[in-house]
Amino acid sequence: MTHASDRALSDHDLRGATAFQLLHWLAAGRIDSAGLTATYRAAIERDNPRLNAYLALAETAPAEAAASDARRREGRTIGRLDGLPVAIKDNLDVAGLPTTAGLPGRRAFVASRDAAAVARLRAAGAVILGKTLLDEGALGTATINPHFGAARNPWREDHVAGGSSGGSAVAVAAGLAAFALGSDTLGSVRIPASHCGLYGLKPTFGEISTCGLVRAARRLDCVGILARSVPDLAVVLQVLDAFDPADPRSRKRRVPLATPDWEPERLRSGILDDLSALGVDAGVEAVFRQAVATLDGCLGETSRVDFSDYDFARMRRSALLVMEAELGVELIGDLADTGAPLSPRLRGMLDYARGKSAVDYAAADRVLDEAVLKARRVFAEVDVLVLPTVPHGPYPIAEGERANDADLTSFASLAGCPAVSLPMGTLPDGFPVGLQLVGAPGSDLRLLELAEVCAARLDAAPAYPVAASA
Amino acid sequence: MTHASDRALSDHDLRGATAFQLLHWLAAGRIDSAGLTATYRAAIERDNPRLNAYLALAETAPAEAAASDARRREGRTIGRLDGLPVAIKDNLDVAGLPTTAGLPGRRAFVASRDAAAVARLRAAGAVILGKTLLDEGALGTATINPHFGAARNPWREDHVAGGSSGGSAVAVAAGLAAFALGSDTLGSVRIPASHCGLYGLKPTFGEISTCGLVRAARRLDCVGILARSVPDLAVVLQVLDAFDPADPRSRKRRVPLATPDWEPERLRSGILDDLSALGVDAGVEAVFRQAVATLDGCLGETSRVDFSDYDFARMRRSALLVMEAELGVELIGDLADTGAPLSPRLRGMLDYARGKSAVDYAAADRVLDEAVLKARRVFAEVDVLVLPTVPHGPYPIAEGERANDADLTSFASLAGCPAVSLPMGTLPDGFPVGLQLVGAPGSDLRLLELAEVCAARLDAAPAYPVAASA
Repeated sequence: MTHASDRALSDHDLRGATAFQLLHWLAAGRIDSAGLTATYRAAIERDNPRLNAYLALAETAPAEAAASDARRREGRTIGRLDGLPVAIKDNLDVAGLPTTAGLPGRRAFVASRDAAAVARLRAAGAVILGKTLLDEGALGTATINPHFGAARNPWREDHVAGGSSGGSAVAVAAGLAAFALGSDTLGSVRIPASHCGLYGLKPTFGEISTCGLVRAARRLDCVGILARSVPDLAVVLQVLDAFDPADPRSRKRRVPLATPDWEPERLRSGILDDLSALGVDAGVEAVFRQAVATLDGCLGETSRVDFSDYDFARMRRSALLVMEAELGVELIGDLADTGAPLSPRLRGMLDYARGKSAVDYAAADRVLDEAVLKARRVFAEVDVLVLPTVPHGPYPIAEGERANDADLTSFASLAGCPAVSLPMGTLPDGFPVGLQLVGAPGSDLRLLELAEVCAARLDAAPAYPVAASA
Repeated sequence: MTHASDRALSDHDLRGATAFQLLHWLAAGRIDSAGLTATYRAAIERDNPRLNAYLALAETAPAEAAASDARRREGRTIGRLDGLPVAIKDNLDVAGLPTTAGLPGRRAFVASRDAAAVARLRAAGAVILGKTLLDEGALGTATINPHFGAARNPWREDHVAGGSSGGSAVAVAAGLAAFALGSDTLGSVRIPASHCGLYGLKPTFGEISTCGLVRAARRLDCVGILARSVPDLAVVLQVLDAFDPADPRSRKRRVPLATPDWEPERLRSGILDDLSALGVDAGVEAVFRQAVATLDGCLGETSRVDFSDYDFARMRRSALLVMEAELGVELIGDLADTGAPLSPRLRGMLDYARGKSAVDYAAADRVLDEAVLKARRVFAEVDVLVLPTVPHGPYPIAEGERANDADLTSFASLAGCPAVSLPMGTLPDGFPVGLQLVGAPGSDLRLLELAEVCAARLDAAPAYPVAASA
């Protein structure tokens, strides 16, 4: 077995590299998967007690890495991700490990098979490192879990990492995985991407199978990706994207995810207007204005997009009821488990749904349709909507979750649109902050192409805080 | 103005003709729209008090017909249906008329604009004759309306016409319209098609805009067509089928509705097995067996399709809760209207939904997903599913609606599949009875092509009971 450090690449190099870079090094024989996996496992052993990114490690990872290396030596790698170690949010099934969804009562439920997305990663050769922390029941935006503690923002560990895929984001930002899967129902991949200086993708609804995901809201749930570059998002998306007949909401694509074809001179970008009215704080607004100015030219013809006809608070309330009701179905066993009770907060939310009537649910679900119609109006006028990912930067864990965390991300979720978050700059307190690009359903690869152009121009990817522990 | 009878075509000829035949006569100048419209209006005046097909007539019809005739004289007809008189179910908006949805309290609500489907008919030149009777809130399968009376089966007027689009079916079967629009949430077009000896189409979910339809269940509601031949269904479908950005559930087609391409020698048909276990009575089963035998060769390679893994009763209960909850939202004004109260039956159903929790709704909605998965399994094995439309023939109105009326139609609704009902023969008591063909989503035109082959072979279209009143 060849360890990466034998080849003059340090652990720091490996942990700071993008998935794409690692794939090149693997292909060139500069590193092998066993060494890379050992590097991550050693870093997890050292840093995870502090950062709280992982809930569980897969003990099969070293053997999987060795098998990948054997395939590569024999010239028969099985896929685009062969040998690449990945972290999986703990609401996606990984065979042989419990799927807690952030609930201690579920530790006894060991998955017998992989979630569809995990199976596709594995079929492409990826090595499953372990399962990452999330909000209780994935119903949160800060990964402050009352049972398992909070995920720690690697830039300052008393601040939130964002949620609900906070553990996945911390794992990638702190160099504890090459990339990670999360889930995004109202912003749960993009919010931690913003707070941790990462690239996050929530694809078009129905593009990635949700079989084996603990459901939060079937009409909204998406599997998403957290990574350290836009090309990483693109290669993983292309591995994961497929029709799955076992997922009732999986769709055969209308437009194949083929080569993007945006002509920059024809691009129309809509910039979200009136940010302070939408609760965006002054620090984020300043970085956003500067980013939009820096991107001048990359965004084609720009215009202001008005959302005054869209009631964010009403949408939030309606989406929450739909999520709470669905979680009430999904977590019915946990509700009854007095040995490992739900937190009073989650129980209160589920009881709220049990106290609302079926007619209330139908009314809320109908409100969500307005987002679909709003998106159709927006994308009749522009190709891409440009806005901040979160109205504010990371805040102290001690302050608790903020109610408006998901206000800017939920629109794409409710409308079924693809959305990317990428680092756009740094707040005065030193935290990274994300820019969000939203496109019409099916425009995922075009959106990623634009995101890569923007990322290159902004050059705002932070130096990930790996060095501190390397 | 040239009246049809001047040209040796009797009122009986006109009222018994298919829409296609009428379009040919209009194009050939053998009849004009004004005469045809006058014929229908005279017949309605005479027969409707007995049959109870229409709730309201559009007084604009004669002027619309005259305008169509003027266009035709000037060689500038505007569409494929120019001059053809049509009946509209009274849960679809027609500008200037109330949309009662079968509820007397709604008579005060006059529609300010046409439903999208009605607007497309009008844009293609159709003449709107009037609005037809339906079950209260469209929540029924027999068109026994506690406020407006029952629609009468033209074959024997003390028997049900089927529902909830019963008025539309009676209008077409009794020669009081060239064709009609209905709505089909769980079978409401196909059930009356079966009972009245008509051809009925419920298209793929999302193909025809539902804007301007009083909603019964947004994930199920389809606008459907009732006609006297398969080609009539096809021409109207092609007029109505279009993406509507204002309907959140309207979809851009994956497969264009182009020329069908079934090769008969490759067709695989699945025959529903174990009919008596599904509640199909002996009379319908005998006609069905005979029809399948007659169709030998038309159906390609046939096999038995097993539905023992599909719990019809559970699906029915779940679908009803979803419908009742949605109607609770849609009819909120009617619930409060003490001057024109809902019937105790409907109020009881809506109260039932108000007594169920949001979690119960989410659980029921999730059960419906099983139909999508079942359909994917079925249509991986066969191209078309062949089954009776209704488990029994028309029954006496005095007996009241039967609980299992929609059991055989609801599968296609819950799965979003297109389905056609066509006459397959006659029951011992003389009533017509329908054969149902169900295809995978998007196969609407291929299904119609097969239906036309079957219709020709079966030759079971009844002599419509027009003569009795002509």
